[in-house]
Amino acid sequence: MNEKKIVGEKAVDFIKDGMVVGLGTGSTVYYTILKLGQLVKDGLSIQGIPSSIQTKELAQKLKIPLVSFKDINQIDVAIDGADEVDSDFNLIKGGGGALLREKIIASGAKNFIVVVTPSKMSKTLGSFPLPVEVVPFGYEMTAKHIKTLGGKPSLREISGTPFQTDNGNYILDCVFPNLSQPKEVETCLNLIPGVVENGLFTGMTDLVISLDGRNHAVLLESGGSKWKQ
Amino acid sequence: MNEKKIVGEKAVDFIKDGMVVGLGTGSTVYYTILKLGQLVKDGLSIQGIPSSIQTKELAQKLKIPLVSFKDINQIDVAIDGADEVDSDFNLIKGGGGALLREKIIASGAKNFIVVVTPSKMSKTLGSFPLPVEVVPFGYEMTAKHIKTLGGKPSLREISGTPFQTDNGNYILDCVFPNLSQPKEVETCLNLIPGVVENGLFTGMTDLVISLDGRNHAVLLESGGSKWKQ
Repeated sequence: MNEKKIVGEKAVDFIKDGMVVGLGTGSTVYYTILKLGQLVKDGLSIQGIPSSIQTKELAQKLKIPLVSFKDINQIDVAIDGADEVDSDFNLIKGGGGALLREKIIASGAKNFIVVVTPSKMSKTLGSFPLPVEVVPFGYEMTAKHIKTLGGKPSLREISGTPFQTDNGNYILDCVFPNLSQPKEVETCLNLIPGVVENGLFTGMTDLVISLDGRNHAVLLESGGSKWKQ
Repeated sequence: MNEKKIVGEKAVDFIKDGMVVGLGTGSTVYYTILKLGQLVKDGLSIQGIPSSIQTKELAQKLKIPLVSFKDINQIDVAIDGADEVDSDFNLIKGGGGALLREKIIASGAKNFIVVVTPSKMSKTLGSFPLPVEVVPFGYEMTAKHIKTLGGKPSLREISGTPFQTDNGNYILDCVFPNLSQPKEVETCLNLIPGVVENGLFTGMTDLVISLDGRNHAVLLESGGSKWKQ
């Protein structure tokens, strides 16, 4: 039994003919995209907006029609995974490095669905280091500013060189001892010059799809937000 | 009489041997940098951090020694121009497109000096359209979010193609009918996913150098902040 497959595939229940769909990035939403590819092959008519080069290539391979922002007025539904989800459905995202485009898409979507296995759910955020996307210029200074907020930043590297996002920026993975007020931390981080975006997604999630004790997909609605038809 | 020259040159009075100096970008701070080059030739020992490729090239031509962020602990003084200065010394910057690096440098400096001719000073900000640096991905969506804050964004172009910053981003020049609460607008803009930084510099200026009625340089100290020795 593949938990990610069960959860990821369930999300397509919310996709209808004619929708513009934001396509996230990661190992759970991967199954959503595979399933969407199957449905498109069977006649479903949608347009996708990919949140990364990786997802774009997958969608193209599956022949899911893609559009860009200039061609649309809004995104009907965005679907994505998360690295951590708290009890208020605030998220930490960015383990894969696509947080900026994912956040642009989620913030532009009428509805935002998060697909996660139960292991990603926790009472309070902070087990997962918070990814913060920063411009390469002066990132050492930006890291110092993050330290004053209580974070311990460490530059993400691949084989000894800085990891570069699809937007040409760096990622600082920041351990925060306390993320019980995620909205405040999200705001303070984004006010630091040099911070492009951070992986805290607060107040954005409309629906979480996860698993119940019998490994059936379960829908969890956010208390704060109503599903918008 | 060259107003920009008088104002720009005055700023070097605050530069001492051994200092790390943030070098802004624009037609007024240009004279500061020229004068610094002269002083360096005469024996002044400083290290500069340039806020743009343009300023870097000028400093190199003048043989001002340059350092990068990884080599320093702090910037002693940053000097820069502005497109508009209000009575609380809040600024609009970014007409030249270097706002992000300028803001990283100013925010990392112990003291921040602004050099402006009197024509740039106004009671309330807003005569100058506010430059907002945004990532190219989904900038159309980002522009829509800015509209919800009351701004009228227009993509900066050069010969029909989008202007690109030194960081590879776009600039949206945004007309705001009311910037009497600049700190709030600065915060709201930076919380929009896709906004990298905006040209509002609030609460950062320690000293403004401008001209009095007899065209002599005049020092205006900020009410909120004290000059830090």
